[in-house]
This record gives sequence, C-alpha cells and structure tokens, in this order.
Amino acid sequence: MARIAVVAGDGIGPEVVAQARKVLDAVLPDVQATEYDLGAARWHRTGEVLPDSVLAELAGHDAILLGAVGDPTVPPGVLERGLLLKLRFAFDQYVNLRPSRLWPGVAGPLGNVKPGEVDLVVVREGTEGLYAGAGGSLHRDTPAEVATEESLNTRHGVERVIRDAFARAGRRERRKVTLVHKTNVLTHAGSLWARTFDAVAAEHPDVATEYQHVDAAAMFLVTQPQRYDVVVTDNLFGDILTDIAAAVTGGIGLAASGCINPEGAYPSMFEPVHGSAPDIAGQGIADPVAAVLSAALLLDQLGHSESAARVNAAVAAELASRVPGVTLRTEEVGDRLAAHVVA
Amino acid sequence: MARIAVVAGDGIGPEVVAQARKVLDAVLPDVQATEYDLGAARWHRTGEVLPDSVLAELAGHDAILLGAVGDPTVPPGVLERGLLLKLRFAFDQYVNLRPSRLWPGVAGPLGNVKPGEVDLVVVREGTEGLYAGAGGSLHRDTPAEVATEESLNTRHGVERVIRDAFARAGRRERRKVTLVHKTNVLTHAGSLWARTFDAVAAEHPDVATEYQHVDAAAMFLVTQPQRYDVVVTDNLFGDILTDIAAAVTGGIGLAASGCINPEGAYPSMFEPVHGSAPDIAGQGIADPVAAVLSAALLLDQLGHSESAARVNAAVAAELASRVPGVTLRTEEVGDRLAAHVVA
Ligand SMILES: CC(C)[C@H](C(=O)O)[C@@H](O)C(=O)O
Ligand SMILES: CC(C)[C@H](C(=O)O)[C@@H](O)C(=O)O
Repeated sequence: MARIAVVAGDGIGPEVVAQARKVLDAVLPDVQATEYDLGAARWHRTGEVLPDSVLAELAGHDAILLGAVGDPTVPPGVLERGLLLKLRFAFDQYVNLRPSRLWPGVAGPLGNVKPGEVDLVVVREGTEGLYAGAGGSLHRDTPAEVATEESLNTRHGVERVIRDAFARAGRRERRKVTLVHKTNVLTHAGSLWARTFDAVAAEHPDVATEYQHVDAAAMFLVTQPQRYDVVVTDNLFGDILTDIAAAVTGGIGLAASGCINPEGAYPSMFEPVHGSAPDIAGQGIADPVAAVLSAALLLDQLGHSESAARVNAAVAAELASRVPGVTLRTEEVGDRLAAHVVA
Repeated sequence: MARIAVVAGDGIGPEVVAQARKVLDAVLPDVQATEYDLGAARWHRTGEVLPDSVLAELAGHDAILLGAVGDPTVPPGVLERGLLLKLRFAFDQYVNLRPSRLWPGVAGPLGNVKPGEVDLVVVREGTEGLYAGAGGSLHRDTPAEVATEESLNTRHGVERVIRDAFARAGRRERRKVTLVHKTNVLTHAGSLWARTFDAVAAEHPDVATEYQHVDAAAMFLVTQPQRYDVVVTDNLFGDILTDIAAAVTGGIGLAASGCINPEGAYPSMFEPVHGSAPDIAGQGIADPVAAVLSAALLLDQLGHSESAARVNAAVAAELASRVPGVTLRTEEVGDRLAAHVVA
C-alpha cells in the first residue's frame, strides 16, 4: 500500500492532480490518498501556510503529490519560503530531480533538434546554496540600504547530491555527468563542488564527466541540448537550467519534477514544474501531462519502476497522437492515460 | 582624438581585434591605439596578471578594446578575478551592456522566430552581487568543509544601473524595461531590487515595465525572445541570461558587450562575449563580427553615435550577404566591413 499525501493546491493544481490520481489509481492497486488543503486559498482564508501539525502528518506519508500553489495576490516568498522550500528543507529533499525529454510528437522550439534526440536529467541540489535563506538587509528604504544573500555549501550536501547523480548516470545508457557551476567567479563554492565532483568521479571510472560554467551550459542547452545526459548543479543554477531544459523540450506544460530524499527517511515530493496558471484555471484545458509524469517519478521512487514505465509509455502514446492546434481537455487526457496504463 | 587601450589577448583575440581596429580606423580619424600585453600568454611568461602600473596606464585612456583572454591551462579565476573583474571593479563599470539582435541573414536556432524580430539589450549590473568576491571556506578538504559566496547589493549600486536601464529604454522605440530577479527566494536582495525598480519606474511614466523571476525569464528568452526590449538584472543573472540571448540570436560569435562607466570617470571596456577559442586560433577563421560590434558600442559610448550606426549598418550588410556553409576568413570579413563603413 502506498500512502500518498495530495496537495492539489490552487488554480489548475486540482485539475491536473485529479488526472495524476486517476492514472496512479489505474496503475497501482491500493493507493491510499489523503488530501491536504494548502496554498494560496488557505492562506487567504486563514492566514496559515503550513501549520506544524500538518507538517507532522505529511511526514507520515510515503510521498507527496503536489499540483501547484500560489496566485498573483500572495506576496512573493510567502508560499515559496513557507511551504515549498519549507518542505524541501524539513524533509531533507536534497535531490531535486528534473528530467527533460523531447518526446516524439512534440514540436520543440529548436529548428535543428528532432524529437527523441534530447533525453537529459538535471540533478539539482535542493537543500543548500542561495536557498538557505541566509540573507539580510540594513538601512531598509534609505539610500544607505544594503541587502545580502549568502550561498551556503557543505561538503556533506554537495557530495551526497553528486553521488546521486553518478548513481543515476550509471543506470543510464550514455553514462555521462556534467557538472555545472561558476568556478571562475564563485571560487570558494566552485572549488568545493569541483573537488568533490572529481573525488566522486574517480570512484566511477565507467561514467564520463565534463564541467561547464553555468553561462556556457545555459547556451548549450539551447544550441546543443542533445549533448547532455545527467547534469548535476547547485540549487539556483538548477532552478534556471531546468526551465531552459523545459523550454527546449516543449515547455513547462510537460515538465515533471521530484524533490527527493533518496534514503526515504522522509517523504519525497512530486510536482509539475508549471505554476497554478490562474489565467486558464477552471476551464478544463490545462495539460495534465506534467502532473502525470510527476506521478511516474513518484512511482519510480517508491520502487514501482514497472508501473512508472507504463505511465511513461502512456504519455509517449498520448503525445505522439496529438494533433497540433486541437485544444485538449484535461479530463479527456487523464482518461486516455488511465486507460492506456491498464491496457 | 580617441585614445584606445587595446588588449588583444589570447587565442583568436588578436585576430578579431585586428579587424575591429581596421573598422575603427576606417570610421574615425585620429584613433590613437596603444597595445597592452595582458592575458594567459603574459601570465605563463611572467606570472603577472595586471600590474598596478598597467592599471594606472589603462586609466588614462578613453576606452579599452579587449579581444579575449584565457586558455585552458590557466587555473579558473586567475584571469577572471585578476584581470576582467578587476577592471570592471577598479573602473566602476557598473553597466554591463549586452545587446542581442537576430540580424537578417542569421539563422537562429528557434524555428518560430524570424530575423529582425528580436532586438533586446540586457543591462547587467557589473560591480556587485555574487561577483563581489565575498566568499570563503573552512575545513577545506575535510568532510566538514563549508564554502560560502555572498551576494552584496546596495541601494546605490542597484539604483544607478536601474536608472541607466530606464534612460536607455526611453531612447528606444518600444520603451519597455523588464526587471529580472528571484524575489520569491532571494527575498532581501530581491526586495531591494524590486522597490528600487518601482521607485525609478514612477519617474518614467512613459516607460512600460514588467517583472519576471530569473527562471521564467530564462524560459521566455527561448520561447518568446521577441517580448523583451530592455532587461535589467543583477550581475550573475545577467551573466546567464545574456548567454541565452546570444544563443537564440545566432551564438556568441555575434555577441558584443560593453563594461561601461556611464559618467566617464573611468574608461569603459568593450569586448566580444566569446572566449579565446584556442581550438580555432591561428587559422584565420574566427568571426570578427562580435569584436566589430563591440567597437560600435565603444564608438557610441564615446559620443560617435553616427559612426557607430555606420558600423552597425556594415555588419547588417555583411550578415545579410553570408551564404550558409561557406567558411569565412577573418581578414576578409574585416576588409569588407572596413570598406563598407567608408562607402
Ligand atoms: C517556486 C520556487 C520557490 C521554486 C524554486 O525556485 O525552486 C520554483 O521555481 C521551482 O523551480 O520549483
Ligand atoms: C569570464 C567571466 C568572469 C565573465 C563573467 O562571468 O562575467 C564572462 O562569463 C562574461 O560574461 O563576461
């Protein structure tokens, strides 16, 4: 039995999560899902973001499936720091996993890249760096104001995520890991990342390695995304690079992610990369594929890799069958995918 | 008379700078150029990166034209921190200006973007943020190692670069400024940037404004680069975004940049975004267009805007006339451009 906490959230969140649950129920008997009401709506209603009691309850689940939270009227940082990042840190989700594939049938924006050619995964560090919240300011709202943001990096944190990246690469066909950082400017953190990368690489002679500065990687993701297999990078660089990778593979409407605690000491969380998209919410036209692919990552993490593969195959069939210009209906896509996984 | 310090540098640097000088000499009478030997070659030979005496001499010029410095055998950071960033900070070059145009005749990587549709300029802050060098580490090479990098931001530094961006937008047709930051995570620095942006925007009711998180901007630069006019952002975000902007407009072979001290208290520096490209150095096949466009930025900064426009027109004609697949010769391109500006 899999105990899944479901945070449907705001905007299109509930619409796409409903389809992901449909597919999960179809592929896995005995999913026990519990809904948690968190996000912008709850904050507006009660002022609460993530009560301690809810955090404790979430901790008792095998995994969390999240739709999307937020709306434009919530001040920046409230739900990000108070909910999303709080969960990543509280549950030590140090592997922020973001695969990008250019699926057959999907027209990406790049003229010279053919479907099937891009299949990369970014292993983004999830618990350190500039996301540590180690900033402050002085003399606010005066001409003398200063504001700082500190990137905190530990050997512990860097090594474990790099190890995860090498382990993933070892299970893939191309067996290549690219480290992305900015060693020529961020010399202290960059050196820690580079030395740790080299040390772990030495234990994996079967995995090919390369290093790129983040600006170069941002460029190559556009001009040559085919070259990447596994990319490992820090929290903020990963945030940016995964949006580029999503953009070149058909957009965030298709991009899945997992915030993973690989040891399973805490629940991992799975969510589409897209936001709550208030502009299209309630119309039944949101693409649920990113949410469904996130459910596939969830299945994989819980050890149901055969079920995960069936979900991916269903998505592949769905995308290959799409006719450009035809508006999709969220429900119908969910129904087709659910039917496909049991077929 | 314009006194230009020329740092040709390493690899293809001297090859492309020679063409930029050809064009400068053709368009402007009385350029007095002085060569400075700086870069990887000098460092290998003497161990020197930027002697104080050279820094003092450079300060006496109207502008600096730089080719490219570096080679793969110089440790990361040596030339970046010791030369490039040293100059940006010593000469208070707080506007790092990076225009990106998809020139007619250039085949960009994006299938749905037509030449002429993209014409944006990134105003990247050049003297603050994570480039301040405010990092350190403890317990190096032990399991307890920690490494930090601190982003330092001042109202002074943020306001002046935002003012520059609005002034530039006011002189352009679309009159729009996009602020890019990550206010939802970097709440202290993000708030300083956002509040300062709003304050300056209030003084420019004729300029349209928008805000985007850096991850979203990275995505939209790929999916909709047409939407940008002037983008203002911090030092590191600007580093990454300008490489994406270069990638979608034909690559860094065409990307120019200026590190500008707008008040002219110190010399500004102009350089192609590309590196020294040791793999093609000495073959006479490097594209000098980025160096020549950097010279146009230099002319503009020194008040020769009519000459700058002639250089840009020559580049436009050159690029429109290129036949895909034909290898260009650096010298010939320089000759054609120089001939065009005097025609
Ligand atoms: C919402 C925000 C805090 C988050 C991040 O920056 O990590 C988002 O951009 C993401 O990539 O998951
Ligand atoms: C070489 C490096 C220090 C530099 C930077 O990071 O600014 C480069 O990438 C650039 O964009 O000019």
